[in-house]
Amino acid sequence: MRLSQLVAPDLLALLENDPAEVRAALEEVHAEDLAEIISDLPTDKAVAILRALPDERTGEVMERLTRESQVQILGSVGRDDAVSLLSEMSPDDRVDLVQDIPDELANQLLTQLEQAEPAAAEELRELSAYGEDTAGGLMTPEYVGLDPQTKVWAAIEEVRRLSRENQAETIYSIYVVGYGTKLLGVVSLRDLILADPSKSLEDVMTENVVRVTPQDDQEAVASVFAKYDLNAVPVVDERGVMLGVVTVDDVVDVVIEEATEDAQMMAAVVPLEDSYFETSFATLVRKRAMWLSVLFVGTLLTANVLEAHESTLATVLALVFFIPVIVASGGNAGAQSSSLIIRGLAVGEVTPRDWFRVAGRELAMGLALGTMLGLLGFARAFFVDTGVSTMDIAVTVASSTIAVVTVGCLAGSLLPLAMQRLGLDPAVSSTPFITCLVDVVGLLVYFAVAKFFLGL
Amino acid sequence: MRLSQLVAPDLLALLENDPAEVRAALEEVHAEDLAEIISDLPTDKAVAILRALPDERTGEVMERLTRESQVQILGSVGRDDAVSLLSEMSPDDRVDLVQDIPDELANQLLTQLEQAEPAAAEELRELSAYGEDTAGGLMTPEYVGLDPQTKVWAAIEEVRRLSRENQAETIYSIYVVGYGTKLLGVVSLRDLILADPSKSLEDVMTENVVRVTPQDDQEAVASVFAKYDLNAVPVVDERGVMLGVVTVDDVVDVVIEEATEDAQMMAAVVPLEDSYFETSFATLVRKRAMWLSVLFVGTLLTANVLEAHESTLATVLALVFFIPVIVASGGNAGAQSSSLIIRGLAVGEVTPRDWFRVAGRELAMGLALGTMLGLLGFARAFFVDTGVSTMDIAVTVASSTIAVVTVGCLAGSLLPLAMQRLGLDPAVSSTPFITCLVDVVGLLVYFAVAKFFLGL
Repeated sequence: MRLSQLVAPDLLALLENDPAEVRAALEEVHAEDLAEIISDLPTDKAVAILRALPDERTGEVMERLTRESQVQILGSVGRDDAVSLLSEMSPDDRVDLVQDIPDELANQLLTQLEQAEPAAAEELRELSAYGEDTAGGLMTPEYVGLDPQTKVWAAIEEVRRLSRENQAETIYSIYVVGYGTKLLGVVSLRDLILADPSKSLEDVMTENVVRVTPQDDQEAVASVFAKYDLNAVPVVDERGVMLGVVTVDDVVDVVIEEATEDAQMMAAVVPLEDSYFETSFATLVRKRAMWLSVLFVGTLLTANVLEAHESTLATVLALVFFIPVIVASGGNAGAQSSSLIIRGLAVGEVTPRDWFRVAGRELAMGLALGTMLGLLGFARAFFVDTGVSTMDIAVTVASSTIAVVTVGCLAGSLLPLAMQRLGLDPAVSSTPFITCLVDVVGLLVYFAVAKFFLGL
Repeated sequence: MRLSQLVAPDLLALLENDPAEVRAALEEVHAEDLAEIISDLPTDKAVAILRALPDERTGEVMERLTRESQVQILGSVGRDDAVSLLSEMSPDDRVDLVQDIPDELANQLLTQLEQAEPAAAEELRELSAYGEDTAGGLMTPEYVGLDPQTKVWAAIEEVRRLSRENQAETIYSIYVVGYGTKLLGVVSLRDLILADPSKSLEDVMTENVVRVTPQDDQEAVASVFAKYDLNAVPVVDERGVMLGVVTVDDVVDVVIEEATEDAQMMAAVVPLEDSYFETSFATLVRKRAMWLSVLFVGTLLTANVLEAHESTLATVLALVFFIPVIVASGGNAGAQSSSLIIRGLAVGEVTPRDWFRVAGRELAMGLALGTMLGLLGFARAFFVDTGVSTMDIAVTVASSTIAVVTVGCLAGSLLPLAMQRLGLDPAVSSTPFITCLVDVVGLLVYFAVAKFFLGL
């Protein structure tokens, strides 16, 4: 049972009878839980509760609502209220929302925001310029940036002030910036409260700051967090100017999102924007049908191969028995290789420069695995009741399995590397595509081998 | 080029000529980078550099070394030095290491540690009791826990002290604990520095603390972090007693690790413990061969199905042409379903209780996708040059495609749910297994349909 189903009735009653009490009642409820409750309410009740909250909390809760609820709420309140709801949200979430709502509503809100808060509108425009999946798209410009001559005691005072006014996404990293907000160093809040209060920030800062550029892909940003165990990372342009900060909470979401996206792409589903149940049936059909029909048409080539070898099949019908097992073993081995390499690329353990190393390894791997499966196939084929020599069939099955598994391993490992080098997402060259390729190539190999051993 | 290759020669020269300077030279280098440099050095040089570092940094660097380097270093230094290296590490990393090294070495070190630092040894024993993949296995007992009556100014002083002595994994969350370390509330460092210094912690703390139990799976812990945007989460037993804290840096690693493990399992690879290149060829063969041979033997059942229908095939050889395309389309649709459901289960969007909802949706999905692909198959089969009516073949292909795709969607979606309900990892019931199942079932369906329409 969802939390909201338990709490919502009480909350609505309270809203009716004693609206002033709502704020106090919700004080201890986590913004995330509150968002869950509100998402399930009718829009007018949701708005009423948002209005009852202190400004700062309104923003926190708005940020955590589902995209659907956010759009409904923004659409149902007046233009002024919509702008004030927007301006309570933190800049990075605000941009994501504005990028996702219908263009007409977005433009109206932007015009309104321009009048109410020109600085926020300008900022929104700047942030919108970065791709949603880049460091620029993830960052917020609300960081603590202080002058190198600032004394430690004054820095603590400033952190207090910014934090009180909710002007910083994180106060646990304090960035030391020089002329033109050039990034000079970083001081953690931990170091700050430990330092001698009379020292300057330049004396206590760490100069070697791990940083990312606004163009960096969010997956690369996540790797940096994972590697250096960071709470936040500064986003810095090519001249060393600090543009904003990406915080670890956004990165946890990114990592989960990317893993889901990869899993879907690896199964030939166009990545969903919402969860499985939130995606409408029609959208899901569309996102699955696309690659499924491409694969179907691709695999139809196997019908051509088989048709072309009709006379061979007519002569030795027993060859048919092993068609599915041979193409499947190539496909399975290829699936293993592609998944290992795609994940390796995603976490940075493998790079396209490893081409020859991967090729050598997978060639040997294909021969080893193929030989093992070939022996199993040989044993099974030996028991086939057929017109021709069972030995010939068994040798054909074994040799074909070795060849097809090797092809599968090579194709499965090298295609993702090629994709990456071409600047495409390697997850596209995944299991179903490898399988489709191996189905067609596998049959060609099988018939070539059969003709050789059976003397057809 | 790796960083270490650039820096290592200079560093070794410095170590030779002016060992006192090493500490100063490395002061600005991030512990992670230092670990990378040291991992590539011969063990004796690595130990020399570790010895040159201040105690606190030694621990930080040790924690970040590869398991292999850690074990080599512990094995090569004297017993006393090994114990002091161990005790510099934070408790959670220490436990992971001790669980991974050879039992004999681990026992020797434990005995030694018992004499040198009985409290640390006791703690290590307690932490070892939790599974590596649980909240208990991830947590560290070094958190800031203060009495509810502590004044804010005194709390800040205490945080300073603990932080200076490196006694806390995170100081950004301060836990308020009562008699018997029962968790009463939490105060963020942010709230603490903002609060009136003369107030007590109980006046400023948040009582509704998001928490996990030591038995919670690490994937569930990661979901809690993602949902509530946390920096740290307290681990609390069933009586409400606080045992430790899990920090967000560990969770980022967990999420990446779990995604890799799932991707490998979904491609029928027994999950690797190391990266693709670090895993030896023999190990990789073993981890791939296991499921690959199970799948091969499973798919061999298709040979039995085909053998049993030998006379049908002999009569209408054209049926052979569509065998690969029919089984592949069922397999691909099944792969899509299983991947959607497995990811949905992993992130908690789908639960086994959604059984009927999923079944209904996937039944409709299978019929929709199957009909679409069936029409494509119909069109292709219509052009086959065959002895019998091409219409009959085309109808057979179309109907079988619909049936097999529907079977694929149902099997692909319901098997992961069944796995989860049985307490198994749903990622096991993945693409290759669905494909194998659909290969066999698909052929049975195909021949049944063929016999019906072709009147055989």
